[in-house]
Amino acid sequence: MVIVMRAEATGNDLAALQAAIEELGMQVHVSRGEERTIVGLIGDKRNVEGFPFTSFSGVESVVHVTHPFKLASRDFHPEPTVVDVGGVKIGGGNLVVMAGPCSVETRDQLLESAHAVKAAGAQILRGGAFKPRTSPYAFNGLGVEGLKLLAEAREATGLKVVTELMDLEHLDVVAEYTDIIQIGARNMQNFPLLRELGKIQKPIMLKRGLSATIEEWLMAAEYILSGGNSDVILCERGIRTFETATRNTLDLNAVPVVKRLSHLPVIVDPSHGTGVASYVPAMSRAGVAAGADGLMIEVHPNPAKALSDGAQSLNVPQFQSLMGEIQALSNALGLRLEERETETVSP
Amino acid sequence: MVIVMRAEATGNDLAALQAAIEELGMQVHVSRGEERTIVGLIGDKRNVEGFPFTSFSGVESVVHVTHPFKLASRDFHPEPTVVDVGGVKIGGGNLVVMAGPCSVETRDQLLESAHAVKAAGAQILRGGAFKPRTSPYAFNGLGVEGLKLLAEAREATGLKVVTELMDLEHLDVVAEYTDIIQIGARNMQNFPLLRELGKIQKPIMLKRGLSATIEEWLMAAEYILSGGNSDVILCERGIRTFETATRNTLDLNAVPVVKRLSHLPVIVDPSHGTGVASYVPAMSRAGVAAGADGLMIEVHPNPAKALSDGAQSLNVPQFQSLMGEIQALSNALGLRLEERETETVSP
Amino acid sequence: MVIVMRAEATGNDLAALQAAIEELGMQVHVSRGEERTIVGLIGDKRNVEGFPFTSFSGVESVVHVTHPFKLASRDFHPEPTVVDVGGVKIGGGNLVVMAGPCSVETRDQLLESAHAVKAAGAQILRGGAFKPRTSPYAFNGLGVEGLKLLAEAREATGLKVVTELMDLEHLDVVAEYTDIIQIGARNMQNFPLLRELGKIQKPIMLKRGLSATIEEWLMAAEYILSGGNSDVILCERGIRTFETATRNTLDLNAVPVVKRLSHLPVIVDPSHGTGVASYVPAMSRAGVAAGADGLMIEVHPNPAKALSDGAQSLNVPQFQSLMGEIQALSNALGLRLEERETETVSP
Amino acid sequence: MVIVMRAEATGNDLAALQAAIEELGMQVHVSRGEERTIVGLIGDKRNVEGFPFTSFSGVESVVHVTHPFKLASRDFHPEPTVVDVGGVKIGGGNLVVMAGPCSVETRDQLLESAHAVKAAGAQILRGGAFKPRTSPYAFNGLGVEGLKLLAEAREATGLKVVTELMDLEHLDVVAEYTDIIQIGARNMQNFPLLRELGKIQKPIMLKRGLSATIEEWLMAAEYILSGGNSDVILCERGIRTFETATRNTLDLNAVPVVKRLSHLPVIVDPSHGTGVASYVPAMSRAGVAAGADGLMIEVHPNPAKALSDGAQSLNVPQFQSLMGEIQALSNALGLRLEERETETVSP
Repeated sequence: MVIVMRAEATGNDLAALQAAIEELGMQVHVSRGEERTIVGLIGDKRNVEGFPFTSFSGVESVVHVTHPFKLASRDFHPEPTVVDVGGVKIGGGNLVVMAGPCSVETRDQLLESAHAVKAAGAQILRGGAFKPRTSPYAFNGLGVEGLKLLAEAREATGLKVVTELMDLEHLDVVAEYTDIIQIGARNMQNFPLLRELGKIQKPIMLKRGLSATIEEWLMAAEYILSGGNSDVILCERGIRTFETATRNTLDLNAVPVVKRLSHLPVIVDPSHGTGVASYVPAMSRAGVAAGADGLMIEVHPNPAKALSDGAQSLNVPQFQSLMGEIQALSNALGLRLEERETETVSP
Repeated sequence: MVIVMRAEATGNDLAALQAAIEELGMQVHVSRGEERTIVGLIGDKRNVEGFPFTSFSGVESVVHVTHPFKLASRDFHPEPTVVDVGGVKIGGGNLVVMAGPCSVETRDQLLESAHAVKAAGAQILRGGAFKPRTSPYAFNGLGVEGLKLLAEAREATGLKVVTELMDLEHLDVVAEYTDIIQIGARNMQNFPLLRELGKIQKPIMLKRGLSATIEEWLMAAEYILSGGNSDVILCERGIRTFETATRNTLDLNAVPVVKRLSHLPVIVDPSHGTGVASYVPAMSRAGVAAGADGLMIEVHPNPAKALSDGAQSLNVPQFQSLMGEIQALSNALGLRLEERETETVSP
Repeated sequence: MVIVMRAEATGNDLAALQAAIEELGMQVHVSRGEERTIVGLIGDKRNVEGFPFTSFSGVESVVHVTHPFKLASRDFHPEPTVVDVGGVKIGGGNLVVMAGPCSVETRDQLLESAHAVKAAGAQILRGGAFKPRTSPYAFNGLGVEGLKLLAEAREATGLKVVTELMDLEHLDVVAEYTDIIQIGARNMQNFPLLRELGKIQKPIMLKRGLSATIEEWLMAAEYILSGGNSDVILCERGIRTFETATRNTLDLNAVPVVKRLSHLPVIVDPSHGTGVASYVPAMSRAGVAAGADGLMIEVHPNPAKALSDGAQSLNVPQFQSLMGEIQALSNALGLRLEERETETVSP
Repeated sequence: MVIVMRAEATGNDLAALQAAIEELGMQVHVSRGEERTIVGLIGDKRNVEGFPFTSFSGVESVVHVTHPFKLASRDFHPEPTVVDVGGVKIGGGNLVVMAGPCSVETRDQLLESAHAVKAAGAQILRGGAFKPRTSPYAFNGLGVEGLKLLAEAREATGLKVVTELMDLEHLDVVAEYTDIIQIGARNMQNFPLLRELGKIQKPIMLKRGLSATIEEWLMAAEYILSGGNSDVILCERGIRTFETATRNTLDLNAVPVVKRLSHLPVIVDPSHGTGVASYVPAMSRAGVAAGADGLMIEVHPNPAKALSDGAQSLNVPQFQSLMGEIQALSNALGLRLEERETETVSP
């Protein structure tokens, strides 16, 4: 951390600042430039987290020279993390496809979806039982009944399951039925929830918030990691910008940035990242080519009948076609489309 | 709601769409333009909330011609809502100032702050007991102990109290100690929390999310209103944009927009809206002049010692000076700086 | 400027960087922290403008600790600049109102507007002769004929005139007819144009670009100032964000930020900043209360007949009413609504 | 176009609006819903471009149901445009790589770059002779001298040349030396310049503005097309968002969106789209996979000595390696990496 003094700061200003820094257990390193004096802080910067240096007389600004995350950082963990979801490995050169309907609607709809996405090569089934909806009047999911249907679909197909958790109250029941707990964009900075997720041993897929910087996203991961749960998967699902031609702006730059800063695997969600089914294949391909460890894609047997997000869902033939393209890309890029370790197909 | 057909849509496409709309209990009104056919839907549009019209063959886009909120709308409630907080009225031409430290830190710090802001003309004391922090390593509040100190400060000064609730788990205890429950920007779309807030009878101050449109903000208010709690106060606290000279971009446009679309009172928070203490007076004045029903301002007896948000906190003399300016503005604009109904000064 | 080295940088990396910096005529100051080594550069940083330090082995990032502008900075020019427009003073505690139609359309329309805004208290007449339009099919102004009408209106009323220049080709003719040359948001970084404006002696009003940071805006002013023209007036007219309820997001934070960083006067344009006539009065008041040196407001005798921007134009009675509010605010804030020095009313 | 009336609009309001629409030569189609009456306009909407309907009594909002561009639209030109640059074809399933230094600096630097990028498989040489720079103190290009060096490099290698035009003054000289005229992001809405580009017969590469919507970008293309020049190539180079980890946010969603809305070819520029050399390969691959018709990549023989944009330039071995990956991707996706028609290698 570097503190920049104003041009007109006095010697007393500097002395008072130095004293405060040393009181926090840090060393000080002063550098006088032609226009500005800058003060470097040496020591464990967690000592000074949130300290209001800019309230001191003569201080112009505070500049952070290192990232605030530690456990999520490649500096401290150079090797990529591989999250093992009951034998399906996420990260480390594998390419994992998660697919299924936005919401679990009925037993038939879910089982039909599950069989179809598995046949096309997906390893993980997605489906929402608890749905965050902008309107209080919209369908908000089947709840625990939906979780049970997901578990039934897992039994029937051998797919692993990912589903969203929206509040602490349902943590136990969601953890009971799912293989990966998804935390949605709107909960990325739900700090009480993140703290509890650090205390369990279950993979967490943490979606990026609509207006979260990559640094804030990694800090949200740090909450979970610092609690003791090291199985965190990131998911880029688009950010909010001025562009209105798409529902969100899928920020694929985030893929190489995360790969450089962190060891955690990162998944791309082109369904929310575009909001339009016809753009999903292009952006699925782009996500893989950018280096993502996997894709999360909404697939519905009949999008025109979907109770949520029908506009961005692929139908089954579209998904099959896309999986063929992904296979070709994966070969060209030297990735492994993960093979399931145990082939537990129900009769 | 209007559905726009593609140029190449066929008669069959149109017929299939019409049938689906009528099945949802709506009437259809078709209008053929030179380039596009458009289909108007007539009826209660909550029938078609989230229905995937764009998945139908031949559909280009769906255009919403009315806002999705009802209870928050001026159309259905033309008179401004006045929220009565134990005699302090928010809305309807009053100007209310909420002030106090970012976090409750110690008994002395809080009581000193409370006496100072009351003397300067504030009616409501702010102070965080549960603090959302980007970093898991930062100070995150005194919890219930902080709530008790707030209640003690209320006793000592006669000020009303506003404090943040972060999760359902603490709803009862926060509701017990505070006069207004604040929902922070990061929880604006915490839908399970919003639903529960609709079931209690306690004023809620709902901060706008960092990347929430005004429409989404009003939809979040609709969650609370639709549960039966009509005492919702909005708070503009800055949105996230590309500008980095300030912590957030305070969107004062939101004040007249909210006044036009809704009957709910709106407060401006220039402390979070700028992130820099020296910009707070200018933006406090601007908020009042834009038509806000009140201000929420961070004040600390010694900002350089604050455990959070010191950089954006005014000290007591700065706050006193600002309140003089606010008084002059308020007179010029014909507003009432609310007088307290009962003068309960502790000995 | 401070250069941050990667954790894994070697002694050779550091030596190579130091040599390169010294070759550029700068001194080096190395500071070794616990996690990172940082390298301070001492000397005139214009020596290293744009130098690709991040291409050096071992370099993680470059951090700027001072602003890149000099002539626009308060550090080098502590007193506020007052621009004298033929006796009308902009800056230094005066409050100037510029008003008139978006476009000059006809002689009658312009003269009627001019007399009306003068009677209501405006000192400067606005009106576009060259109009930037998103569509090639829209009305794009009367050109030189419009400039002549502006000059006629000036004769008739004693108002000063501000109008937009869109390209170098028309610099001479625009400069001949106007008192202030306006540079629109889309030309804020038209660098060849800015360079030429530095060579003339005529006040320039530089609108902020739709996605320009305040620093970039001041750098655009620096282009003009560095050419030798010191009469630069800034104009905040709203930035582009995700919010769609308004045409732009008026960033009033920019007013106190500019006042802190720079000595240049700043005007607020609530017409473009909101895009909706009914929001203009609130945001005009807010702009004044935030500390702006003036307002630029679109006024049309009959907005429903306007050829451009009718939706955001006030009619004459609305403008008169607003000017009454501005007068009251101005008194409350101790501002001077500028009185004209010479009363040159044409017969 | 659809006009939405307020709930409280009267019969007179509606009649006045109808009369005004009919006076503009359009037909009216009224549709009464439960909450709102909506008015459809039938006819050529260029008649009503910019008409201020929201200034009419009783009007709530205006909703556009078709895009404002015609010549750039797929509706009117279903087949993809292929721009022929002296035998190098852009669009229609070819994949073209443009590469070279940010700025032309010296004869040696440019020739070395040109030979290297040609050997690696590029068909078009990029290099700036006129450089837009945020700071007036930064290197701004060699001007006409740079154009001559580009022409010399073309002679020496057989590569085609693309370079930026910044103002009308240099249109003739730039057109003389280059094969494609590049219009930079900051000039995307320089309307006088766009109009002149419509009058010449030379391919134009139009970069997307930093805060331009895709619709505005296509309207800028419409300016050129409507003047009679049909050889327009679009270039996505990143938009401005809140994210600071990268210089811009490369919006690859724009690729499938443009492909759906328009027939014009689109190029991706990952160098400006990320601002960091180490992210360029990932985003080059992603651009190709998203369906772009080509890439524009900054390559410099020695990025650490570059006078501009060194931080985002690849060196030659990095570019060679990337071209191998692009070749593999291109094969997997069934694209043609364009072969030059005539092999004019200089001795």
